[in-house]
Parts: sequence; structure tokens; C-alpha cells
Amino acid sequence: MAEQLNPDEKLQLITRNLQEVLGEEKLKQVLQERELKVYWGTATTGKPHVAYFVPMSKIADFLKAGCEVTILFADLHAFLDNMKAPWELLELRVQYYEQVIKAMLESIGVPLDKLKFVKGTDYQLSREYTLDVYRLSSMVTEHDAKKAGAEVVKQVEHPLLSGLLYPGLQALDEEYLKVDAQFGGVDQRKIFTLAEKYLPSLGYAKRSHLMNPMVPGLTGTKMSSSEEDSKIDLLDKKEDVKKKLKKAFCEPGNIENNGLLSFVKHVLFPLHGEFSVKRDPKWGGDKVYTAFEDVEKDFAEELVHPGDLKASMEVALNKLLDPIRKKFETPELRKLANTAYPDPSKTRKGAKPSAAGEEAELAPSRLDIRVGKVISVEKVRTPLKREPRRVEPLDPPEGSSPGDRVFVEGYETGKPDDKLNPKKKVWEKLQVDLKLSGECVAQWKDQQLMTKLGPVTCKSLKGANIS
Amino acid sequence: MAEQLNPDEKLQLITRNLQEVLGEEKLKQVLQERELKVYWGTATTGKPHVAYFVPMSKIADFLKAGCEVTILFADLHAFLDNMKAPWELLELRVQYYEQVIKAMLESIGVPLDKLKFVKGTDYQLSREYTLDVYRLSSMVTEHDAKKAGAEVVKQVEHPLLSGLLYPGLQALDEEYLKVDAQFGGVDQRKIFTLAEKYLPSLGYAKRSHLMNPMVPGLTGTKMSSSEEDSKIDLLDKKEDVKKKLKKAFCEPGNIENNGLLSFVKHVLFPLHGEFSVKRDPKWGGDKVYTAFEDVEKDFAEELVHPGDLKASMEVALNKLLDPIRKKFETPELRKLANTAYPDPSKTRKGAKPSAAGEEAELAPSRLDIRVGKVISVEKVRTPLKREPRRVEPLDPPEGSSPGDRVFVEGYETGKPDDKLNPKKKVWEKLQVDLKLSGECVAQWKDQQLMTKLGPVTCKSLKGANIS
Repeated sequence: MAEQLNPDEKLQLITRNLQEVLGEEKLKQVLQERELKVYWGTATTGKPHVAYFVPMSKIADFLKAGCEVTILFADLHAFLDNMKAPWELLELRVQYYEQVIKAMLESIGVPLDKLKFVKGTDYQLSREYTLDVYRLSSMVTEHDAKKAGAEVVKQVEHPLLSGLLYPGLQALDEEYLKVDAQFGGVDQRKIFTLAEKYLPSLGYAKRSHLMNPMVPGLTGTKMSSSEEDSKIDLLDKKEDVKKKLKKAFCEPGNIENNGLLSFVKHVLFPLHGEFSVKRDPKWGGDKVYTAFEDVEKDFAEELVHPGDLKASMEVALNKLLDPIRKKFETPELRKLANTAYPDPSKTRKGAKPSAAGEEAELAPSRLDIRVGKVISVEKVRTPLKREPRRVEPLDPPEGSSPGDRVFVEGYETGKPDDKLNPKKKVWEKLQVDLKLSGECVAQWKDQQLMTKLGPVTCKSLKGANIS
Repeated sequence: MAEQLNPDEKLQLITRNLQEVLGEEKLKQVLQERELKVYWGTATTGKPHVAYFVPMSKIADFLKAGCEVTILFADLHAFLDNMKAPWELLELRVQYYEQVIKAMLESIGVPLDKLKFVKGTDYQLSREYTLDVYRLSSMVTEHDAKKAGAEVVKQVEHPLLSGLLYPGLQALDEEYLKVDAQFGGVDQRKIFTLAEKYLPSLGYAKRSHLMNPMVPGLTGTKMSSSEEDSKIDLLDKKEDVKKKLKKAFCEPGNIENNGLLSFVKHVLFPLHGEFSVKRDPKWGGDKVYTAFEDVEKDFAEELVHPGDLKASMEVALNKLLDPIRKKFETPELRKLANTAYPDPSKTRKGAKPSAAGEEAELAPSRLDIRVGKVISVEKVRTPLKREPRRVEPLDPPEGSSPGDRVFVEGYETGKPDDKLNPKKKVWEKLQVDLKLSGECVAQWKDQQLMTKLGPVTCKSLKGANIS
């Protein structure tokens, strides 16, 4: 297909649906002479889910436009993000990412011959690269490094030094991966401009930057667009997809923060050029849209109902997921998926006695946390509250009653201690891992605090501790 | 000698004259079992001068106490400190440091068989070390890193990221050099405590720390204890030593900030156990002191005059320097000294035409800077003043008259432009490199601003810009 495109058409395909392009002139120049080299990086931590179809559909565009695409698996970053995970596990995750991304792109139907996968540790610990990290750190001010990471690095009360290093590494990756451009979400913008500012100081070429808009998650509630349990995994069964879509936030006529509409716009239309809406004949019957704007308009005017959109999405999603599910039916890939992301409940059972003992000692189910009613902040100590600068009470799910038990996902069945032994400091030890996610959801070790009605959240504090 | 010492005697020798020891218990334990391993690091930038005898006399103690001493030449730091200097030059400097340090220790008469030299780049760019730098940066907060470097890293308006990394590297060096203790000035204290705090988090042993007091420079004025031209180089000729000592700040009866007395205390007594004062027979004649306190007392009571002290120091210094001078008479070492620290005036002449042209364009001698008299700060613009937050006027040397020309060392002979062409921005370009040194001396590119009477200084602002 790329052979049939002229440079202008390639550029159009490369840049369509992007929110911003920095250095477009340079892209044009390169396209006059040869195919463009683009890189996209992802830290190999969490399991890729359907939202990955958003960058993938842009990567599909790049590949269709003849680009040489490098996908960087930032395993060093993943390691630093969770130093408790051993390298062997991280290596399995890199393999899983590679397999699943290939499966996604195959499902989309793009040629993979110009796609390359690189691991961060393949070059980021080399002498040459490391010296460049130091050279860069002797030019970049603390202030610039901090500013660059402001939107991407987790903003916490006591920021770690590593957060200041990552933007520089991402800049150097452009040089070491020998690309013309880096692709990423527009949340990466400040890192991209740091790269544009400093690479030339090191004697390296300034690269172009291709930025996707921030697309809300496909599922999730309004409060939390990407709660772990509501994310649709690429290997989820059809019934799970149905169940999760059912819970997705999607108000009649409301086109803001609608993850389903965003998915239609950023994934389904770029891939298929059309979208079929399933609708009861009494409301007008099925309709095939060939422009996203028409879908959006009909939804806004309530000609398409949330139920119609969800049902149609279910069909479209399953079409995308079927080839991936099929690929992962082989014993090798099934094993890979299981070992790269072991089921936490199984690991607990299978753990060694000593580790299991420790685990038992610190299982969050030992805490008997209950929903409380705040009568007066002065007089009543709420059972759950948050500090440090700003303090907000945690909000149980709507409809909760005082006394409802709060549990940590995966630890639903544990029995709380009758009385916490103060000498054992059970609460203190567990409290260390209690925090609010970037989406204001209460978590213990990245797993949600829930009641039977759903997750516990707060109004606005992100990344704060819970005490 | 070490064979004759028991562990307690070794500990006494290792810790004598130190201001502080952290982890002394651990030192005692080690000494019960084996010889202690100690490291001292120095960045291979400026030319080592006589002040290096201060750490050397402690290193002599360590060696006499049987310690295995590693001297780390921090060439990576030196490179990052001045990225314009090529690696070949830095390599020559490392060689020069090694030769000159060996010569100093030989002059002191200590056995060198337990002394080891290591270059930073021998291991600091390795995969293993680099991963540890990242691991550490994922544990150390920005705040802790900043605090650790506060006394050592140059405090500037826009601090660089590298300044936050150095303390962590210095902590890791303890592990990678496999030592029991690190030795340094007490200005390193916060780096040492960072190392004690974080090495165990990486799974490494906490090391002990041996801290020398901060010793004022041997020569220099009161304002500036270590001005470059007043520093006594290890290869200075006898007449230069005499000349520089003559200029050294040494007030009759004043034992504060007296670099000569400090040198007697921290170098000569530890080495020789005595100090001979040359004195005119009419003031009591020569006297051999066997305790520093007696020298200090006699100086305070003006029984020993600055002239006596300087003359005595001259003899003692020349005794220390003679073997070094002699060693550096060989053609190889003479060549090494010249290539590692090429004479700036010679390099200027030998430079390529284009570079020379550029140099000429920006020679600071083109500025006609004169000493002015501040009549009233409101009404008269002083010809030299300093910004940014706090502002102080620059002080010409005592005895200066308005109109005295201010020149930059090494550019004494250049003729100032009759009129600065504003389009060429001569002043603006030269001003960029005008600053106050850490010792409050006005400098242009690390060379002093002088009048015929001596250097231009300021009261208290260090490292500030001059405008």
C-alpha cells in the first residue's frame, strides 16, 4: 500500500487524527527522500488492555505509510518502577508485550515487516549511552528536568530522583534508536520539547514529535476511567467484554468523556472507515456510519442510545479481539500469559511457606475497615480519612451504608483480626501501601479498595497517601 | 611499622587529627580481624598543589597503620565538570595525579605497596554500576540528593541535574571499591550520611566515614585563601615558593585563618613530630618545637613573628618539595606535566588561525576596566559592580587609586579598544565569563582580574556574576 502513496499522502496518513506535530517540515523533507523512522515507547509493567488499540491504530497508520516503526519496551523503567519484580518476570512481560502487540497489529491487518522491537536494557545500560546520560545531566537544569516530567512522572509529596532522569533518557532514546520522530500521547509534550532543546547540545539531531490526543478509557466509571477491574483485557472472554461494557460510563446524549465514542473515533474509524450501529427496528434499526461526526451527532441527539452503542461496540471489539484470543490459544502463548502475569490469588497459594507466612501476616483482609458516616469533622473520627496537606474524606460507592465492609480486591475472603495487636503494627505496615491512584481510586498495592457496591474513591486528590 | 602496632594503636593512628568519625565501632571490629580498606577520591581537574599534603598526611597515617588505601581519580566527574576538555587530556591528568601523589607520598616516606589507584571510568560506566545508579535514584528523593550535595556541589542559580547524581555515585563507589571506610573533608559529611542511609537499601553494607577538618590554604590573602596564582605548585621553584609565601596572609599574633599554622599542625607535625622555627638570635634564636600547641602559643604571644614562621615554612616546604621536583626532572615526567597542564599562553599562540582570530576577538584585554571611586551609590555608576540578588561593589587591592587599570591574568599586555563597537557586543560576550570565585575573587574564565597591586575581590559574594 505504501508504494502507492506519494510523500504528501504518506504525511497525511502519518499525521491524521494527531493533536499536534512538532517539526513537520523535517518530516516532509525526509519523506521526499526515504521512508520515515518512528519510535513509540511503552514501559512493560501492567498488562496491555484494549486502550492499547489507540496507539496501535496510529502505528498501523505509520506502517501503512511505509514508516519503519520501532517499538521500545522500556524494561529498565519497568524494573525501576517496581524493583521487587525480578528480571526474569520482566523478561517474560517483554515477550508478552511483543506477542500481544503483534497480535493486535495482525488483527488490524497491517504488514509487520517494517516493525522492530527493542528492549531498553539492550542499550540503555551501555557505556556510551550512560556517558550521554551524564553529559545530558550536566546540561539540563533540575528545573527543566522537573518541568519536563510534570505531566508524566507521578507527582508525589517526596519525588524521587529517578523522575528527573526519565525525560533525559527518553530524549536519548531518539538518538540511540536512530529515528526521525517519536510518537506519544500529548501528555509527553514537555518531554518532547526537552528532547528538542537538548539533543542538539549533545551534537545530535533534533527529532520531530507526533502527538496523539489524550483519549479517555473505553470502560470505567466517570470517576475513574481506567480502574483495573473494569479494563477490558485483550484476552478477555466474550462474556467479560459484555459485562465490562455494561459498567462503562456512557450517559444518554452526553458526548463528553465518553470512552466508547472516543474508541469509535480513534480506533474503529481509522481502521475500518465505518461503524455499524445495532439498533432495535423500532428506533430506526441498524445503521452503518461512514463518518464519526454522524455517530457523535446521533448520540448527542439521543437517536443512538447508550445501550445501542454498547451493543455495537461489543460486536466491533470482539471482532478485534477474536484473532488475538485465537493466537493465544497455543500452549506456548497461554503459558507465557500465565507466567508473565501470574494470577495473584494463585501465587499466594503457591508461594513458599515463609513468603506465604509473611504474606498472611500482612494481608489487608486483616483490617476491618468499614464505611462510616461523617457527622461532624470535629467530633467524630472517621474510620477512613486522608492526609497530608489537603485532606479529603474517602467516598464509598453511592448507596453505601455505614458499616459496609471495605476490602482490598483479591482479598475479599480474608477474615479480619478481632483486635489488631499494636505491637505487630499491622495497620502501620499495611498503611504504607495505601494510596490514591492517579484516578482518585483508593488502592492497596495497586489493587482497589472496594465495598460490595464498587470502588472507594475521593473527590480530587491523586497519588496521596491514606491514613 | 604497621606490623608493630596493635589494633588500638592502628585505630589511634587512623583517626588522629580527624574532626569526626562515623562508624568507629565497625572500624574497631575490622581491625581486630584484618587491615582496614579505605578510599579517598579526588576529581582530576586542577593541578594538585601543596594543600594536597593535608589529605596526603592522613593517607600516610592510613598506610602506616597498615590500611589498604585506594585513591579514586574521579575522571568522569572531571569530564563532566568541563566537557570541553577531551578525554586524552583527562587521561594525561590522571597520570599526572598518580605520579605527583606517589611523589608526595615518597617524599613523606611512606610505603606504597598497599596503595592502589583506580579511575572512575574503570567501573562507573559499567552496566552493573549504572543499574545501581538508577536503582539508587529510584529510592533517593530529590530533596535528600539536594541536601547531600549542599556543601560540595557548586550552589548556583540554576542547578544542574548532575549535581543531584554525584552524591549517589560517591555512595556507590564505596561498594564498588570494596572498602570499609571513605575518607574526606568534613564538607563531605552530608554525602557520607546519604551513603550510610541508602547503601543498605540496595543490599550493600554501610561503610564508616573518616572526616578531616577543613584546613585553610597555606597561602593566599585573607580574602581568598586559595587564589590560583598564590597556590604553591608541587613543582614550583624555590624562588616561587619564597615569593608566594611572602604574599600569604599571616598577621602577627593572629592564629585564626592562618594557613601556615594549619599546615604546621596538619602536615608537618603528623609527618615529622617536630617543627623548627628559624629566628634571629636577637629574638631568641632558632627553636625546635615538639608540640604544635607550643608553636601556636608562641605565635599568639608574638614570640614567633610572621617573618619567622614564613622563613621556617619555606625550609620545611622545600624539604617536602625537593624529592618531587627531582622526580619530575626526568624528560618523561617533565613532558607529562607540560602536556597534562599546557601553558595557556603557549596554547594561545599555537592555536589555529581561525581559533586565534576568535580568541583575539574576545580577548578580555579589549576592555578598558579601571578602578573607580564610589562617591555615592545613588549618583555615580561604579565601573564595576555585581548583581543578581545581592549586589556588592568589587574591591580593588588595598592602595589602589581611581584610574588604575584592571586586567585579566595572562592578558596584561593587550591593548583595549578605543571604543567598544556595540554591534559586536564585546562587553556582553566577555561578561558571560566574568564571575566571582568561591573565594570571592573576580575572575574571567577562571583567571583573575587584577590590578598591578593584586587581585580584585569582593566582601562576601561567592560564585556570583559580574556585570
